[in-house]
Amino acid sequence: MEYNFKLEIKVRDYECDLQGVVNNSNYQRYMEHTRHEYLESLGENFGTMHEKGVDAFVSRVDIQFKTSLRSGDSCLSCLHTAKEGAKLVFYQDLFRASDNALAAKGKVEIVVVINGKLTRGEYFDDLLKKINER
Amino acid sequence: MEYNFKLEIKVRDYECDLQGVVNNSNYQRYMEHTRHEYLESLGENFGTMHEKGVDAFVSRVDIQFKTSLRSGDSCLSCLHTAKEGAKLVFYQDLFRASDNALAAKGKVEIVVVINGKLTRGEYFDDLLKKINER
Amino acid sequence: MEYNFKLEIKVRDYECDLQGVVNNSNYQRYMEHTRHEYLESLGENFGTMHEKGVDAFVSRVDIQFKTSLRSGDSCLSCLHTAKEGAKLVFYQDLFRASDNALAAKGKVEIVVVINGKLTRGEYFDDLLKKINER
Amino acid sequence: MEYNFKLEIKVRDYECDLQGVVNNSNYQRYMEHTRHEYLESLGENFGTMHEKGVDAFVSRVDIQFKTSLRSGDSCLSCLHTAKEGAKLVFYQDLFRASDNALAAKGKVEIVVVINGKLTRGEYFDDLLKKINER
Repeated sequence: MEYNFKLEIKVRDYECDLQGVVNNSNYQRYMEHTRHEYLESLGENFGTMHEKGVDAFVSRVDIQFKTSLRSGDSCLSCLHTAKEGAKLVFYQDLFRASDNALAAKGKVEIVVVINGKLTRGEYFDDLLKKINER
Repeated sequence: MEYNFKLEIKVRDYECDLQGVVNNSNYQRYMEHTRHEYLESLGENFGTMHEKGVDAFVSRVDIQFKTSLRSGDSCLSCLHTAKEGAKLVFYQDLFRASDNALAAKGKVEIVVVINGKLTRGEYFDDLLKKINER
Repeated sequence: MEYNFKLEIKVRDYECDLQGVVNNSNYQRYMEHTRHEYLESLGENFGTMHEKGVDAFVSRVDIQFKTSLRSGDSCLSCLHTAKEGAKLVFYQDLFRASDNALAAKGKVEIVVVINGKLTRGEYFDDLLKKINER
Repeated sequence: MEYNFKLEIKVRDYECDLQGVVNNSNYQRYMEHTRHEYLESLGENFGTMHEKGVDAFVSRVDIQFKTSLRSGDSCLSCLHTAKEGAKLVFYQDLFRASDNALAAKGKVEIVVVINGKLTRGEYFDDLLKKINER
Protein backbone atom coordinates (compact mmCIF):
# COMPACT_ATOMS: atom_id res chain seq x y z
CA MET A 1 0.00 0.00 0.00
CA GLU A 2 1.15 3.50 -0.71
CA TYR A 3 0.95 5.55 2.46
CA ASN A 4 0.02 9.21 2.66
CA PHE A 5 1.93 9.81 5.87
CA LYS A 6 4.44 8.13 8.19
CA LEU A 7 5.44 8.96 11.75
CA GLU A 8 7.97 7.27 14.00
CA ILE A 9 6.72 6.78 17.56
CA LYS A 10 8.90 5.64 20.45
CA VAL A 11 7.18 3.47 23.05
CA ARG A 12 6.86 5.24 26.40
CA ASP A 13 7.19 2.92 29.37
CA TYR A 14 4.00 4.12 31.07
CA GLU A 15 2.17 2.85 27.97
CA CYS A 16 3.23 -0.73 28.81
CA ASP A 17 0.95 -2.64 31.14
CA LEU A 18 1.54 -5.43 33.64
CA GLN A 19 2.00 -7.93 30.79
CA GLY A 20 5.11 -5.95 29.83
CA VAL A 21 3.69 -4.91 26.45
CA VAL A 22 2.09 -1.74 25.15
CA ASN A 23 -1.53 -1.75 26.31
CA ASN A 24 -3.97 -2.21 23.42
CA SER A 25 -5.67 1.13 23.96
CA ASN A 26 -2.40 2.90 23.23
CA TYR A 27 -2.28 1.62 19.66
CA GLN A 28 -5.56 3.50 19.18
CA ARG A 29 -3.83 6.54 20.68
CA TYR A 30 -0.80 6.14 18.41
CA MET A 31 -3.20 6.04 15.47
CA GLU A 32 -5.01 9.19 16.62
CA HIS A 33 -1.74 11.04 17.10
CA THR A 34 -0.60 9.98 13.63
CA ARG A 35 -3.84 11.27 12.05
CA HIS A 36 -3.49 14.58 13.87
CA GLU A 37 0.15 14.96 12.84
CA TYR A 38 -0.96 14.19 9.31
CA LEU A 39 -3.51 17.01 9.64
CA GLU A 40 -0.72 19.34 10.75
CA SER A 41 1.32 18.32 7.72
CA LEU A 42 -1.67 19.56 5.66
CA GLY A 43 -1.63 22.90 7.46
CA GLU A 44 -4.50 22.06 9.82
CA ASN A 45 -4.56 21.64 13.61
CA PHE A 46 -7.16 19.57 15.45
CA GLY A 47 -7.51 22.05 18.33
CA THR A 48 -7.88 25.03 15.99
CA MET A 49 -10.50 23.11 13.99
CA HIS A 50 -12.47 22.54 17.21
CA GLU A 51 -12.32 26.25 18.05
CA LYS A 52 -13.68 27.03 14.57
CA GLY A 53 -16.63 24.68 15.23
CA VAL A 54 -15.32 21.90 13.00
CA ASP A 55 -15.07 18.57 14.81
CA ALA A 56 -13.86 15.32 13.34
CA PHE A 57 -15.30 12.42 15.33
CA VAL A 58 -14.25 8.80 15.13
CA SER A 59 -17.34 6.75 14.35
CA ARG A 60 -15.67 3.34 14.23
CA VAL A 61 -12.31 1.68 14.82
CA ASP A 62 -11.37 -1.83 13.79
CA ILE A 63 -7.90 -2.77 14.98
CA GLN A 64 -6.09 -6.09 14.68
CA PHE A 65 -3.17 -6.63 17.03
CA LYS A 66 -0.34 -8.68 15.52
CA THR A 67 2.99 -8.22 17.29
CA SER A 68 3.34 -6.71 20.76
CA LEU A 69 5.46 -3.61 21.15
CA ARG A 70 7.65 -3.44 24.26
CA SER A 71 9.83 -1.08 26.26
CA GLY A 72 12.64 0.21 24.07
CA ASP A 73 10.74 -0.36 20.81
CA SER A 74 9.93 2.26 18.24
CA CYS A 75 7.22 1.85 15.67
CA LEU A 76 6.61 3.34 12.28
CA SER A 77 3.01 4.50 12.09
CA CYS A 78 1.72 4.71 8.52
CA LEU A 79 -1.63 5.80 7.13
CA HIS A 80 -3.52 5.82 3.89
CA THR A 81 -6.74 7.82 3.44
CA ALA A 82 -9.83 7.14 1.38
CA LYS A 83 -13.19 8.84 1.02
CA GLU A 84 -16.04 6.32 1.44
CA GLY A 85 -19.43 8.02 1.21
CA ALA A 86 -19.66 10.79 3.80
CA LYS A 87 -16.84 9.23 5.77
CA LEU A 88 -13.11 9.67 5.64
CA VAL A 89 -11.49 6.32 6.24
CA PHE A 90 -7.96 5.90 7.50
CA TYR A 91 -6.15 2.64 6.92
CA GLN A 92 -3.41 2.63 9.51
CA ASP A 93 -0.52 0.21 9.97
CA LEU A 94 2.01 0.18 12.78
CA PHE A 95 5.32 -1.58 12.15
CA ARG A 96 7.94 -2.39 14.79
CA ALA A 97 10.94 -0.37 13.70
CA SER A 98 13.59 -2.95 14.56
CA ASP A 99 12.40 -5.64 12.13
CA ASN A 100 9.46 -4.12 10.25
CA ALA A 101 7.04 -6.65 11.84
CA LEU A 102 3.40 -5.60 11.63
CA ALA A 103 2.36 -4.60 15.15
CA ALA A 104 -1.20 -3.46 14.47
CA LYS A 105 -3.49 -2.85 11.53
CA GLY A 106 -6.44 -0.51 11.82
CA LYS A 107 -9.34 0.92 9.90
CA VAL A 108 -10.63 4.14 11.41
CA GLU A 109 -13.77 5.88 10.19
CA ILE A 110 -14.24 9.60 10.71
CA VAL A 111 -17.24 11.88 10.31
CA VAL A 112 -17.17 15.65 10.38
CA VAL A 113 -19.59 17.72 12.40
CA ILE A 114 -19.69 21.47 11.77
CA ASN A 115 -21.39 23.64 14.37
CA GLY A 116 -23.14 20.55 15.68
CA LYS A 117 -24.43 19.34 12.31
CA LEU A 118 -23.27 16.15 10.63
CA THR A 119 -21.87 17.01 7.19
CA ARG A 120 -21.40 14.97 4.04
CA GLY A 121 -17.67 15.40 4.50
CA GLU A 122 -17.07 18.28 2.10
CA TYR A 123 -14.38 19.36 4.52
CA PHE A 124 -12.59 16.10 3.75
CA ASP A 125 -12.88 16.67 0.02
CA ASP A 126 -10.96 19.93 0.36
CA LEU A 127 -8.28 18.19 2.40
CA LEU A 128 -8.00 15.34 -0.10
CA LYS A 129 -7.83 17.84 -2.98
CA LYS A 130 -4.93 19.43 -1.13
CA ILE A 131 -3.26 16.00 -0.93
CA ASN A 132 -3.70 15.32 -4.63
CA GLU A 133 -2.39 18.71 -5.68
CA ARG A 134 0.90 18.06 -3.95
CA MET B 1 -29.17 -9.33 24.40
CA GLU B 2 -28.72 -11.04 27.72
CA TYR B 3 -25.55 -9.77 29.35
CA ASN B 4 -23.18 -11.83 31.49
CA PHE B 5 -21.92 -8.86 33.43
CA LYS B 6 -22.63 -5.18 34.03
CA LEU B 7 -20.48 -2.47 35.58
CA GLU B 8 -21.24 1.18 36.20
CA ILE B 9 -18.37 3.50 35.27
CA LYS B 10 -18.26 7.22 36.10
CA VAL B 11 -16.52 9.41 33.55
CA ARG B 12 -13.29 10.89 34.90
CA ASP B 13 -12.57 14.39 33.64
CA TYR B 14 -9.00 13.61 32.54
CA GLU B 15 -10.57 11.09 30.15
CA CYS B 16 -12.28 13.92 28.25
CA ASP B 17 -10.25 15.56 25.50
CA LEU B 18 -10.23 19.04 24.02
CA GLN B 19 -13.53 18.34 22.24
CA GLY B 20 -15.10 18.09 25.70
CA VAL B 21 -16.03 14.43 25.27
CA VAL B 22 -14.50 11.17 26.46
CA ASN B 23 -11.58 10.39 24.14
CA ASN B 24 -12.29 7.35 21.96
CA SER B 25 -9.38 5.35 23.34
CA ASN B 26 -10.99 5.44 26.78
CA TYR B 27 -14.02 3.45 25.62
CA GLN B 28 -11.54 0.69 24.80
CA ARG B 29 -10.17 1.11 28.33
CA TYR B 30 -13.65 1.00 29.86
CA MET B 31 -14.24 -2.23 27.98
CA GLU B 32 -10.95 -3.74 29.20
CA HIS B 33 -11.72 -2.78 32.78
CA THR B 34 -15.18 -4.32 32.47
CA ARG B 35 -13.73 -7.61 31.17
CA HIS B 36 -11.21 -7.71 34.00
CA GLU B 37 -13.86 -6.99 36.62
CA TYR B 38 -15.91 -9.76 35.04
CA LEU B 39 -12.89 -12.06 35.46
CA GLU B 40 -12.75 -11.09 39.12
CA SER B 41 -16.42 -11.91 39.48
CA LEU B 42 -15.47 -15.41 38.26
CA GLY B 43 -12.76 -15.69 40.92
CA GLU B 44 -9.87 -14.84 38.57
CA ASN B 45 -7.53 -11.86 38.51
CA PHE B 46 -5.71 -10.65 35.41
CA GLY B 47 -2.46 -9.88 37.23
CA THR B 48 -2.42 -13.23 39.02
CA MET B 49 -3.08 -14.99 35.71
CA HIS B 50 -0.05 -13.22 34.22
CA GLU B 51 2.13 -14.32 37.15
CA LYS B 52 0.98 -17.93 36.56
CA GLY B 53 2.09 -17.64 32.91
CA VAL B 54 -1.45 -17.34 31.53
CA ASP B 55 -1.92 -14.26 29.35
CA ALA B 56 -5.09 -13.22 27.62
CA PHE B 57 -4.25 -11.00 24.66
CA VAL B 58 -6.67 -8.89 22.66
CA SER B 59 -6.30 -9.89 19.02
CA ARG B 60 -8.94 -7.55 17.59
CA VAL B 61 -11.27 -4.76 18.63
CA ASP B 62 -14.12 -3.39 16.55
CA ILE B 63 -15.81 -0.46 18.27
CA GLN B 64 -18.61 1.75 16.99
CA PHE B 65 -19.02 5.11 18.70
CA LYS B 66 -22.64 6.28 18.92
CA THR B 67 -23.22 8.89 21.63
CA SER B 68 -20.43 10.91 23.25
CA LEU B 69 -20.00 10.66 26.99
CA ARG B 70 -19.14 13.89 28.81
CA SER B 71 -18.03 15.22 32.17
CA GLY B 72 -20.55 14.24 34.83
CA ASP B 73 -21.86 11.24 32.89
CA SER B 74 -21.89 7.68 34.10
CA CYS B 75 -22.17 4.72 31.79
CA LEU B 76 -23.38 1.19 32.24
CA SER B 77 -20.85 -1.15 30.68
CA CYS B 78 -22.37 -4.50 29.71
CA LEU B 79 -20.81 -7.59 28.19
CA HIS B 80 -21.84 -10.88 26.70
CA THR B 81 -19.32 -13.66 26.00
CA ALA B 82 -19.18 -16.29 23.28
CA LYS B 83 -16.64 -18.92 22.29
CA GLU B 84 -15.84 -18.70 18.57
CA GLY B 85 -13.21 -21.25 17.56
CA ALA B 86 -10.09 -20.77 19.66
CA LYS B 87 -11.17 -17.25 20.54
CA LEU B 88 -13.25 -15.85 23.32
CA VAL B 89 -15.34 -13.03 21.94
CA PHE B 90 -16.78 -10.26 24.09
CA TYR B 91 -19.74 -8.29 22.82
CA GLN B 92 -19.63 -5.10 24.83
CA ASP B 93 -22.15 -2.26 24.98
CA LEU B 94 -21.78 1.00 26.86
CA PHE B 95 -24.97 2.90 27.71
CA ARG B 96 -25.14 6.45 29.04
CA ALA B 97 -26.71 6.04 32.46
CA SER B 98 -28.91 9.15 32.37
CA ASP B 99 -31.03 8.11 29.39
CA ASN B 100 -29.84 4.62 28.41
CA ALA B 101 -28.53 5.93 25.05
CA LEU B 102 -26.02 3.59 23.40
CA ALA B 103 -22.62 5.25 23.73
CA ALA B 104 -20.44 2.57 22.16
CA LYS B 105 -20.76 -0.96 20.86
CA GLY B 106 -17.74 -3.24 20.66
CA LYS B 107 -16.65 -6.70 19.65
CA VAL B 108 -13.41 -7.73 21.30
CA GLU B 109 -11.58 -10.93 20.42
CA ILE B 110 -9.25 -12.57 22.91
CA VAL B 111 -6.70 -15.35 22.60
CA VAL B 112 -4.96 -17.11 25.45
CA VAL B 113 -1.23 -17.72 25.54
CA ILE B 114 0.13 -20.07 28.21
CA ASN B 115 3.86 -19.96 28.91
CA GLY B 116 4.35 -18.28 25.55
CA LYS B 117 2.31 -20.80 23.52
CA LEU B 118 -0.95 -19.95 21.80
CA THR B 119 -3.66 -22.31 23.09
CA ARG B 120 -6.96 -23.44 21.65
CA GLY B 121 -8.65 -21.62 24.47
CA GLU B 122 -9.27 -24.52 26.81
CA TYR B 123 -8.77 -22.02 29.59
CA PHE B 124 -11.85 -20.19 28.31
CA ASP B 125 -13.87 -23.38 28.27
CA ASP B 126 -13.28 -23.83 31.97
CA LEU B 127 -14.31 -20.24 32.62
CA LEU B 128 -17.44 -20.59 30.50
CA LYS B 129 -18.30 -23.87 32.26
CA LYS B 130 -18.06 -21.94 35.50
CA ILE B 131 -20.50 -19.38 34.09
CA ASN B 132 -22.98 -22.00 33.01
CA GLU B 133 -22.88 -23.85 36.31
CA ARG B 134 -24.03 -20.73 38.15
CA MET C 1 -6.91 14.29 59.97
CA GLU C 2 -10.58 14.85 59.44
CA TYR C 3 -11.38 14.40 55.76
CA ASN C 4 -13.96 16.40 53.80
CA PHE C 5 -14.54 13.67 51.26
CA LYS C 6 -13.76 10.01 50.60
CA LEU C 7 -14.00 7.97 47.41
CA GLU C 8 -13.24 4.31 46.80
CA ILE C 9 -11.30 3.69 43.57
CA LYS C 10 -10.67 0.25 42.10
CA VAL C 11 -7.34 -0.17 40.31
CA ARG C 12 -7.79 -0.67 36.56
CA ASP C 13 -5.24 -3.02 35.03
CA TYR C 14 -4.26 -0.63 32.22
CA GLU C 15 -3.13 1.73 34.99
CA CYS C 16 -0.45 -0.75 36.03
CA ASP C 17 2.87 -0.51 34.22
CA LEU C 18 5.57 -3.05 33.36
CA GLN C 19 6.70 -3.11 37.00
CA GLY C 20 3.30 -4.60 37.81
CA VAL C 21 2.24 -1.65 39.94
CA VAL C 22 0.01 1.37 39.34
CA ASN C 23 2.08 3.90 37.39
CA ASN C 24 2.89 6.98 39.49
CA SER C 25 1.08 9.37 37.16
CA ASN C 26 -2.18 7.56 37.90
CA TYR C 27 -2.10 8.53 41.57
CA GLN C 28 -2.20 12.12 40.36
CA ARG C 29 -5.21 11.12 38.24
CA TYR C 30 -6.91 9.40 41.16
CA MET C 31 -6.44 12.59 43.15
CA GLU C 32 -7.88 14.75 40.35
CA HIS C 33 -10.89 12.47 40.00
CA THR C 34 -11.44 12.60 43.76
CA ARG C 35 -11.37 16.41 43.77
CA HIS C 36 -13.84 16.54 40.87
CA GLU C 37 -16.19 14.06 42.56
CA TYR C 38 -15.93 16.19 45.67
CA LEU C 39 -16.95 19.19 43.54
CA GLU C 40 -19.96 17.21 42.32
CA SER C 41 -20.88 16.42 45.92
CA LEU C 42 -21.01 20.21 46.42
CA GLY C 43 -23.37 20.60 43.47
CA GLU C 44 -20.65 21.73 41.00
CA ASN C 45 -19.30 20.05 37.89
CA PHE C 46 -15.84 20.70 36.47
CA GLY C 47 -17.00 20.67 32.83
CA THR C 48 -19.91 23.01 33.53
CA MET C 49 -17.57 25.37 35.39
CA HIS C 50 -15.30 25.46 32.33
CA GLU C 51 -18.25 26.30 30.07
CA LYS C 52 -19.14 29.17 32.43
CA GLY C 53 -15.60 30.53 32.06
CA VAL C 54 -14.48 29.39 35.51
CA ASP C 55 -11.34 27.24 35.40
CA ALA C 56 -9.58 25.71 38.34
CA PHE C 57 -5.94 25.05 37.47
CA VAL C 58 -3.48 22.96 39.42
CA SER C 59 -0.47 25.15 40.18
CA ARG C 60 1.54 22.59 42.14
CA VAL C 61 1.46 18.94 43.18
CA ASP C 62 3.68 17.35 45.79
CA ILE C 63 3.08 13.62 46.04
CA GLN C 64 4.90 11.05 48.17
CA PHE C 65 4.54 7.43 47.11
CA LYS C 66 4.51 4.99 50.01
CA THR C 67 2.96 1.62 49.14
CA SER C 68 2.43 0.40 45.57
CA LEU C 69 -1.08 -0.44 44.47
CA ARG C 70 -1.47 -3.51 42.26
CA SER C 71 -3.99 -5.32 40.10
CA GLY C 72 -6.99 -6.28 42.19
CA ASP C 73 -6.44 -3.55 44.78
CA SER C 74 -8.90 -0.87 45.71
CA CYS C 75 -7.91 2.32 47.42
CA LEU C 76 -9.73 4.78 49.59
CA SER C 77 -9.01 8.28 48.34
CA CYS C 78 -9.48 10.94 51.03
CA LEU C 79 -9.14 14.68 50.91
CA HIS C 80 -9.07 17.64 53.23
CA THR C 81 -9.29 21.23 51.96
CA ALA C 82 -7.77 24.44 53.25
CA LYS C 83 -7.64 28.00 51.96
CA GLU C 84 -4.07 29.30 51.92
CA GLY C 85 -3.91 32.86 50.53
CA ALA C 86 -5.44 32.93 47.06
CA LYS C 87 -5.01 29.18 46.72
CA LEU C 88 -7.20 26.28 47.62
CA VAL C 89 -5.02 23.50 48.92
CA PHE C 90 -6.06 19.87 48.91
CA TYR C 91 -4.36 17.44 51.24
CA GLN C 92 -5.01 14.07 49.71
CA ASP C 93 -4.26 10.60 51.07
CA LEU C 94 -4.74 7.31 49.29
CA PHE C 95 -5.04 4.17 51.42
CA ARG C 96 -4.94 0.60 50.14
CA ALA C 97 -8.37 -0.74 51.03
CA SER C 98 -7.27 -4.25 52.06
CA ASP C 99 -5.07 -3.17 55.00
CA ASN C 100 -5.39 0.61 55.21
CA ALA C 101 -1.70 1.06 54.27
CA LEU C 102 -0.87 4.58 53.06
CA ALA C 103 -0.31 4.31 49.32
CA ALA C 104 0.29 7.98 48.51
CA LYS C 105 0.13 11.34 50.23
CA GLY C 106 -0.31 14.52 48.22
CA LYS C 107 -0.60 18.25 48.55
CA VAL C 108 -2.27 19.84 45.56
CA GLU C 109 -2.54 23.60 45.08
CA ILE C 110 -5.29 25.10 42.94
CA VAL C 111 -5.85 28.58 41.55
CA VAL C 112 -9.03 29.82 39.94
CA VAL C 113 -9.08 31.72 36.68
CA ILE C 114 -12.34 33.40 35.63
CA ASN C 115 -12.66 34.49 32.00
CA GLY C 116 -8.88 34.32 31.71
CA LYS C 117 -8.12 36.38 34.82
CA LEU C 118 -6.46 34.99 37.93
CA THR C 119 -8.74 35.57 40.92
CA ARG C 120 -8.06 35.78 44.62
CA GLY C 121 -10.11 32.63 45.03
CA GLU C 122 -13.43 34.17 46.04
CA TYR C 123 -15.00 31.28 44.20
CA PHE C 124 -13.35 28.95 46.70
CA ASP C 125 -14.66 30.95 49.63
CA ASP C 126 -18.21 30.36 48.45
CA LEU C 127 -17.53 26.65 48.10
CA LEU C 128 -15.93 26.46 51.54
CA LYS C 129 -18.85 28.38 53.03
CA LYS C 130 -21.10 25.75 51.50
CA ILE C 131 -19.00 23.06 53.22
CA ASN C 132 -19.16 24.75 56.60
CA GLU C 133 -22.90 25.31 56.43
CA ARG C 134 -23.51 21.60 56.07
CA MET D 1 21.30 25.13 35.12
CA GLU D 2 23.37 22.77 33.05
CA TYR D 3 21.20 19.89 31.92
CA ASN D 4 22.33 16.29 31.54
CA PHE D 5 19.73 15.47 28.92
CA LYS D 6 17.15 17.12 26.67
CA LEU D 7 14.25 15.63 24.74
CA GLU D 8 11.73 17.31 22.47
CA ILE D 9 8.16 16.10 23.04
CA LYS D 10 5.22 16.99 20.79
CA VAL D 11 1.87 17.37 22.55
CA ARG D 12 -0.59 14.61 21.58
CA ASP D 13 -4.18 15.79 21.41
CA TYR D 14 -5.53 12.99 23.61
CA GLU D 15 -3.28 14.41 26.34
CA CYS D 16 -5.32 17.63 26.35
CA ASP D 17 -8.37 17.68 28.59
CA LEU D 18 -11.69 19.52 28.42
CA GLN D 19 -9.97 22.76 29.42
CA GLY D 20 -8.11 22.54 26.11
CA VAL D 21 -4.71 22.20 27.78
CA VAL D 22 -2.42 19.27 28.50
CA ASN D 23 -3.77 17.54 31.60
CA ASN D 24 -1.45 17.95 34.59
CA SER D 25 -0.83 14.24 34.97
CA ASN D 26 0.76 14.17 31.53
CA TYR D 27 3.58 16.49 32.59
CA GLN D 28 4.49 13.79 35.10
CA ARG D 29 4.39 11.32 32.21
CA TYR D 30 6.57 13.54 30.01
CA MET D 31 9.07 13.68 32.87
CA GLU D 32 9.05 9.89 33.29
CA HIS D 33 9.55 9.36 29.57
CA THR D 34 12.44 11.84 29.59
CA ARG D 35 14.15 10.00 32.47
CA HIS D 36 13.73 6.67 30.70
CA GLU D 37 15.10 8.06 27.43
CA TYR D 38 17.98 9.45 29.44
CA LEU D 39 18.56 5.92 30.83
CA GLU D 40 18.62 4.61 27.26
CA SER D 41 21.19 7.26 26.34
CA LEU D 42 23.33 5.72 29.10
CA GLY D 43 22.93 2.25 27.61
CA GLU D 44 20.23 1.13 30.05
CA ASN D 45 16.56 0.24 29.47
CA PHE D 46 13.89 0.45 32.13
CA GLY D 47 12.15 -2.77 31.06
CA THR D 48 15.40 -4.73 30.91
CA MET D 49 16.32 -3.43 34.36
CA HIS D 50 13.00 -4.69 35.70
CA GLU D 51 13.63 -8.14 34.19
CA LYS D 52 17.04 -8.20 35.91
CA GLY D 53 15.31 -7.49 39.26
CA VAL D 54 16.42 -3.86 39.42
CA ASP D 55 13.51 -1.47 39.90
CA ALA D 56 13.72 2.28 40.15
CA PHE D 57 10.69 3.61 42.01
CA VAL D 58 9.58 7.20 42.25
CA SER D 59 9.30 8.07 45.93
CA ARG D 60 8.25 11.70 45.51
CA VAL D 61 7.33 14.21 42.84
CA ASP D 62 7.02 17.95 43.33
CA ILE D 63 5.83 19.68 40.17
CA GLN D 64 5.00 23.34 39.63
CA PHE D 65 2.84 24.16 36.62
CA LYS D 66 3.66 27.50 35.00
CA THR D 67 2.46 27.77 31.40
CA SER D 68 -0.16 25.48 29.88
CA LEU D 69 0.81 23.46 26.83
CA ARG D 70 -1.83 23.13 24.11
CA SER D 71 -2.62 21.26 20.91
CA GLY D 72 0.11 21.90 18.37
CA ASP D 73 2.76 22.76 20.97
CA SER D 74 6.06 21.00 21.40
CA CYS D 75 8.08 21.16 24.59
CA LEU D 76 11.72 20.74 25.36
CA SER D 77 12.06 18.44 28.36
CA CYS D 78 15.34 18.93 30.22
CA LEU D 79 16.78 17.17 33.24
CA HIS D 80 19.64 17.48 35.65
CA THR D 81 20.56 14.69 38.08
CA ALA D 82 21.98 14.78 41.59
CA LYS D 83 22.70 12.14 44.21
CA GLU D 84 21.15 13.12 47.55
CA GLY D 85 21.79 10.45 50.19
CA ALA D 86 20.40 7.11 48.95
CA LYS D 87 18.19 8.89 46.44
CA LEU D 88 18.76 9.97 42.89
CA VAL D 89 17.05 13.29 42.37
CA PHE D 90 16.00 14.57 38.96
CA TYR D 91 15.45 18.29 38.48
CA GLN D 92 13.25 18.48 35.42
CA ASP D 93 12.13 21.52 33.44
CA LEU D 94 9.71 21.58 30.53
CA PHE D 95 9.88 24.56 28.17
CA ARG D 96 7.35 25.41 25.47
CA ALA D 97 9.34 25.14 22.27
CA SER D 98 7.76 28.12 20.48
CA ASP D 99 8.91 30.77 22.97
CA ASN D 100 10.97 28.94 25.59
CA ALA D 101 8.37 29.72 28.29
CA LEU D 102 8.70 27.50 31.36
CA ALA D 103 5.76 25.10 31.26
CA ALA D 104 6.55 22.99 34.32
CA LYS D 105 9.31 22.55 36.85
CA GLY D 106 9.70 19.32 38.75
CA LYS D 107 11.80 17.59 41.37
CA VAL D 108 11.53 13.83 41.21
CA GLU D 109 13.09 11.53 43.79
CA ILE D 110 13.97 7.95 42.91
CA VAL D 111 14.97 4.96 45.01
CA VAL D 112 16.34 1.71 43.70
CA VAL D 113 15.08 -1.67 44.83
CA ILE D 114 17.08 -4.75 43.83
CA ASN D 115 15.37 -8.12 44.15
CA GLY D 116 12.86 -6.54 46.49
CA LYS D 117 15.43 -4.88 48.78
CA LEU D 118 15.86 -1.13 49.10
CA THR D 119 19.46 -0.25 48.26
CA ARG D 120 21.64 2.71 49.14
CA GLY D 121 21.64 3.62 45.48
CA GLU D 122 25.00 2.09 44.49
CA TYR D 123 23.36 1.41 41.16
CA PHE D 124 22.99 5.17 40.73
CA ASP D 125 26.64 5.76 41.58
CA ASP D 126 27.67 3.55 38.68
CA LEU D 127 25.34 5.42 36.35
CA LEU D 128 26.60 8.79 37.53
CA LYS D 129 30.21 7.62 37.15
CA LYS D 130 29.32 6.72 33.58
CA ILE D 131 28.00 10.27 33.10
CA ASN D 132 31.11 11.87 34.50
CA GLU D 133 33.46 9.74 32.44
CA ARG D 134 31.91 10.99 29.23
